[in-house]
Parts: sequence; structure tokens; C-alpha cells
Amino acid sequence: MGKTAMGPQTLIYPMPTLLVGADIDGKPNFMAVAWGGIAGSDPPMVSVAIRHSRYTLKGIRQNMAFSVNVPSADMARETDYCGIISGAKVDKVGVCQFEVFYGEVDNAPLIEQCPVNMECRVVHMLDLGSHSLVVGRIEETHVSEACLTDGKPDVSKIRPFAFNTTTLQYQALGEVVGKAFSMGRELKTQ
Amino acid sequence: MGKTAMGPQTLIYPMPTLLVGADIDGKPNFMAVAWGGIAGSDPPMVSVAIRHSRYTLKGIRQNMAFSVNVPSADMARETDYCGIISGAKVDKVGVCQFEVFYGEVDNAPLIEQCPVNMECRVVHMLDLGSHSLVVGRIEETHVSEACLTDGKPDVSKIRPFAFNTTTLQYQALGEVVGKAFSMGRELKTQ
Repeated sequence: MGKTAMGPQTLIYPMPTLLVGADIDGKPNFMAVAWGGIAGSDPPMVSVAIRHSRYTLKGIRQNMAFSVNVPSADMARETDYCGIISGAKVDKVGVCQFEVFYGEVDNAPLIEQCPVNMECRVVHMLDLGSHSLVVGRIEETHVSEACLTDGKPDVSKIRPFAFNTTTLQYQALGEVVGKAFSMGRELKTQ
Repeated sequence: MGKTAMGPQTLIYPMPTLLVGADIDGKPNFMAVAWGGIAGSDPPMVSVAIRHSRYTLKGIRQNMAFSVNVPSADMARETDYCGIISGAKVDKVGVCQFEVFYGEVDNAPLIEQCPVNMECRVVHMLDLGSHSLVVGRIEETHVSEACLTDGKPDVSKIRPFAFNTTTLQYQALGEVVGKAFSMGRELKTQ
């Protein structure tokens, strides 16, 4: 079987499902983002791609600060809501009953119910056409104590979920395929 | 239960597992990358974070071109190998028995066995400290015909896998949590 050329498509699998937060005119707001990830380790960095028209981007520009929150599968409904509705129209924090807290970074609102929260300061904003690629330095990370095992974040308790760009479904993580930095060693001796 | 502050950590879940390709001194090479994702839709863009010392980055700089290939779970061993070994030392294409092909973009090598391949031209390279964030415009996408259903990419056939940054395990996708741009509508009427 061969290949089919499909024109330029945004087909990365899996994509994360994240809630990006910012204060806009002094009030916290959150949007769902699948186009985000880690951008560096020293210092720790994240990047998120946000459409220019989004209300959350206005807040990021106001304060040059934002948060990245990892929701668990039992928050999929609220997360989806934050991707459908604009904070310019409704108070999403109220509708979703998010308990918001702040850490070190002013104006980087964090969601108590999300197992993992990262506070970020903007270091770059790249205009890429439809989207702005916002690159932030991670200043502090918070993890829910209920999602730790032996002091380490436990993904089976965090229960993150992926966004499937083709089916438009949210999917949990499944079976373990293998051990990283390990299973490939078999090929070294061949 | 409360929160534990853990200092700045790179805790995004799930992360994808990707094979990024480049020609270095005229020969194709691939590295495993978990820190990558979509960066825009119009035009379609990707970003990948690569440590400055990596051999693949040398090739990306030489040609300002690269590829992003999505491996399937049955390629986890080869993918892991490409994350362990440097192409400066061995011919990874030979060891992994990758069948390499090229499309529109010169010097963006693609792996036949990977269900999804994106050809990219570099539009930005940001120095973020330990890593360079490479932003590329997706010029063409190829999907294996065996992974299409009714002409659309089928994630159940692609079988992509996530990289779990805490357990260092590769994980397949699991149960469907819900429908995006849909399940959140329930909250609109509350």
C-alpha cells in the first residue's frame, strides 16, 4: 500500500487537551487548547498556539502572563465548554465552578480542580498568520496532592486526555506500549 | 486535599511521540521528539523543540527543512532507538530499516512506515536556552493508504502513542471520554 498526499494538514497525534488561563481586565478566563506543548527544559518553557481573535489572548497581552492547566477526564465537559464559548460573553469560571487560585506570577489564574497547573511568563509571541504562538517560561508548577504517588505526579491519578483532531473526540490514555530510553536498546546489538 | 508546589516542571500530558527528520550532509536522519505540536492553521504550522547539541538540528539548519513523522505503536522500538542514539555515530535509517522517500520539500526525508508524514520548511528558529524551538510551515502531508477510512485518516489504524514524561513509558490511546465541540454544550443551558 502506498501513500496519499492530502495537502498541508495539521495531523499530529496525540494532541494534549489543556486549559490556558489569563486575567482579562482583572478577571480570570480559561480557554481549551490542543495546540500546545513543552518548548524547552532549561529554563522550562511551554508554547501554546492561540487564534488572534481569542479573548484569552487579549489577557495574555495585557499582563504578559498566563497559565497552563491539565484537566482530568472527569473535567472533559467543562474543558469542552471552555473551547466552545468566549469569555467575552460569559463568566466561564462561574459556569464551570472553577476554584481559581494564584501563585507566584501575578495574573496567571490557576484552576484548583485541574491536577497540574503551570504559571508562565511570556518570553515570545510569534505571529504565524491565523495564530499567535505564545512562548512562556514556566515559573512554578502545582500538582494536586491527591494525584501524587511517593511525591511524584501519577498519570493514572491525573487522568489527562488527548484531543483527536480527526474524530474530534477526547480520548484517555490506554495500554503501555513500552519503556522509553530502554526498548530501543534492543536494536543496538543487532 | 491541596496542592504541592514542585518548582518549574515540564508536566504536559499527554505528549505526542514523533520522529523528526532532516538531511545532514546529504544523508537522512531521524530523532524522537515529544516536545512538538501544531502551531497554527492558516497557514498550517508545526513547532518542535530540539536541544542545540542534536545532530538533526544541524541538518535542519543546513537546509531550513525538516519532516514530522507520526509512528504507529508497532514502531515504538525503532522510535525509541532514534531517541537514544545520535545519527552522528550510526546510520539510524539502516538500523531501523526505514524506507525513506521525499515529496515537495527538498531535504525533508519522510518514513514510508510512519502512517502520517508532514514536509516542513523552517519559518522561525527561537533560541530558548537549552533548546531551539523550530517553527515550520507544513507544505504537504502524506498518509498511508492503509490508515485511511473513507478517505480520512483513521486514528484506530494509525495507532499513535503518547510519551509519558513521569513514567517514561509510551502509551497508546484508550477509551473515548467524549465528543469535542459538543459535550460542553450541556453547560450552556444550566
